[in-house]
Amino acid sequence: MYERLKGFRDFYPEDMGPRREAMDALEGAAERYGFREVGTPALESTQMYVDKSGEGIVDELYSFTDQGGRDVALTPELTPTVARMVVAKQQALSKPIKWYSTRAFWRYEEPQQGRFREFYQTNVDIFGSSDPRADAEVLAVAADGLTSLGLTSDDFEFRVSHRDILGGLLNAFDADVDTQDAIRVVDKREKIEYGEYLDGLSAAGLSYEQAEQFDELLTGDDLDALTAFAGTERVSAAVQNLRNVLAAADDLGVREYCDVSLTTARGLDYYTGVVFECFDATGDIGRSVFGGGRYDDLIEEFGGQPTPAVGVAPGHAPLNLLLERAGVLPESELTTDYYVLQVGDTEQEAARVAGDLRDRGHVVETDVSDRSFGAQMNYADSIGARTVVIVGEQDLANGEVTVKNMASGDQTTAPFADFPGDRDEPRLEDFA
Amino acid sequence: MYERLKGFRDFYPEDMGPRREAMDALEGAAERYGFREVGTPALESTQMYVDKSGEGIVDELYSFTDQGGRDVALTPELTPTVARMVVAKQQALSKPIKWYSTRAFWRYEEPQQGRFREFYQTNVDIFGSSDPRADAEVLAVAADGLTSLGLTSDDFEFRVSHRDILGGLLNAFDADVDTQDAIRVVDKREKIEYGEYLDGLSAAGLSYEQAEQFDELLTGDDLDALTAFAGTERVSAAVQNLRNVLAAADDLGVREYCDVSLTTARGLDYYTGVVFECFDATGDIGRSVFGGGRYDDLIEEFGGQPTPAVGVAPGHAPLNLLLERAGVLPESELTTDYYVLQVGDTEQEAARVAGDLRDRGHVVETDVSDRSFGAQMNYADSIGARTVVIVGEQDLANGEVTVKNMASGDQTTAPFADFPGDRDEPRLEDFA
Repeated sequence: MYERLKGFRDFYPEDMGPRREAMDALEGAAERYGFREVGTPALESTQMYVDKSGEGIVDELYSFTDQGGRDVALTPELTPTVARMVVAKQQALSKPIKWYSTRAFWRYEEPQQGRFREFYQTNVDIFGSSDPRADAEVLAVAADGLTSLGLTSDDFEFRVSHRDILGGLLNAFDADVDTQDAIRVVDKREKIEYGEYLDGLSAAGLSYEQAEQFDELLTGDDLDALTAFAGTERVSAAVQNLRNVLAAADDLGVREYCDVSLTTARGLDYYTGVVFECFDATGDIGRSVFGGGRYDDLIEEFGGQPTPAVGVAPGHAPLNLLLERAGVLPESELTTDYYVLQVGDTEQEAARVAGDLRDRGHVVETDVSDRSFGAQMNYADSIGARTVVIVGEQDLANGEVTVKNMASGDQTTAPFADFPGDRDEPRLEDFA
Repeated sequence: MYERLKGFRDFYPEDMGPRREAMDALEGAAERYGFREVGTPALESTQMYVDKSGEGIVDELYSFTDQGGRDVALTPELTPTVARMVVAKQQALSKPIKWYSTRAFWRYEEPQQGRFREFYQTNVDIFGSSDPRADAEVLAVAADGLTSLGLTSDDFEFRVSHRDILGGLLNAFDADVDTQDAIRVVDKREKIEYGEYLDGLSAAGLSYEQAEQFDELLTGDDLDALTAFAGTERVSAAVQNLRNVLAAADDLGVREYCDVSLTTARGLDYYTGVVFECFDATGDIGRSVFGGGRYDDLIEEFGGQPTPAVGVAPGHAPLNLLLERAGVLPESELTTDYYVLQVGDTEQEAARVAGDLRDRGHVVETDVSDRSFGAQMNYADSIGARTVVIVGEQDLANGEVTVKNMASGDQTTAPFADFPGDRDEPRLEDFA
């Protein structure tokens, strides 16, 4: 007996059903905003990730040398791949480019609740617009996807921040600060002790006094006070951009899900503007459910024309936790429209009935195991069949089949030649 | 600028659209027969493939040692994985088990037309039934999927054979034959010279005279002559089973796509009964489009209870070739229901209109790039918008928006407050 690998999952139908519904909900929201599906490779050159994130990333990658001597890695995220695709066809693609896709990614990390080595995300990105409406549209797709699954503002919140507010504020201190390092420290704020946090900011270049002042400004979430403190055009512009995004989110009806939270930093280096993370509003799930943000420099770094970009990538494992906590995980019940039960040598007639029902778009099963009446009825029950059509030798001798409603247990006969006849969805009531 | 790996593909929206339609068609057919979706890992233990196919398989695998020292491989096919999943939950799963899924697989092979290192298949399998109706149902799912895409019996054919006919026939010769080796030679028959073919059969144990006689029996496709020649219960039973499967296919309305073709052997060792391959009926595409068959021993070999199984796995790249050849490749045209065009400072009103239309399930785009009227109209045209709703400052001052039919170019005004109002799908005609 073989075992599946640690951190990988098998999804049997009862688990796959709710997952598919969640994926369909997010994809449906993206489609309603005009995003188009793309398909992307599972393997890329390892170098692409090293250039983007440094050699350290290799520890987290499933990377290896292929039979042709190429250093390759299982994709740990989508963004570098779609950036590569935008650069490859930059001239031909009309802007804004609005893409989505749902697929697996892989990271060699220690599995924990809601985190696996193989994990699925729905990525939603806009390339070619720096307008606040683009940021808001990405937030709206995520919010609409979540609310269409039954989640409300009691269940989730988007903590919204801005990289340039953080960066500009850090630069406003009289100190030589490594901005990226400092932002990574902010990103870890919730997970580490306050002392360690200050140590980190100190290591990034702030004095301890400055670090405490910086933290007070961040946690105050008072954009006016912060703008006044910094006194720079950069911070004023970043604050205005954040406000414009929130106003655009208001226009789209999703402002209620957004809280300004400047300590939300997002660890990834490539973010440049608005960043946000989705959290469980009750706090039961202590960590970020998913996140996104603006990354205006990446396309240029990948060798393309300067192209602003913004995206979000809900992960399905943490989303599943959120849906479970809120009590709105889609139900996994099997549903089958019709089971066509065979009694005696009626394969041909049963196949005709089943085929006619399938032609009308219904989910129809029939016996493929030569089973007894009782065994077939049990199976029909186990797959949630709503109606059972019994095609038996004796009934057929009278030109009839029997139609049984599985919920009520009632049944009646119907003419074989007129079943389903011109009915789109024949039911017991049509013949009783 | 980064390059994608050889044998891997990026699917931009215009390529992804037709592919998604083909996937939906196959999945839709499987669903109508009551198959349920499963989700499966991209990595498995390399040992699983070595045990099943021998050390030679490793040359075709993307295999490597992970950071935890495990020998792992990117899955080259689905069957071992679903067999593992059946074994893991054998007691809990009600039979028949009917599963489908669409996903990528990987093989380190030389790319050629319709063959890539990363390729997508829709796998459809039934576990727990040895009945000919199960074989026929799998054929019917494939045929229904293909015909729902517009293919006809002029476009494709299923060449159907039976492993036990081949095996039984080989055993009927007075020779010590390695059946698996001989079947592998038969599988290559179309691709090699006749002399090389006979050499192969000779190496497998037949004399040259026997090899020629064997080939005549196979190519004759005369099941009665073959049964008489073999004179064994095994061959009689296999022939009867093949006939029963074809009769069941007839009941399901898909017999017309099936031709008995005993030289169709399928290379994989695990097949045990009926095997089949789908070919382009015109012969333009010289090789098999996809295949399937019965593999009754695999679950037991994987450590489970004896469990018969049958499946099919259409690959989307060769299917795409078939659809192209037949001229029925789904169109890739972008369609958008509405574009909401903003003129002046009308973001809020435009967002309200767009949101109301999205709430009605439509695909709606609006400006996220602060573009001119002309640029927005060009974009609306490029995304195939059917209706443009112009939300302009001047119109709004009169309480109006303008509705434009993009096909006819006609336009009229509509009351802003009553757009879309109680209309599910507001059109120019509603206001003209």
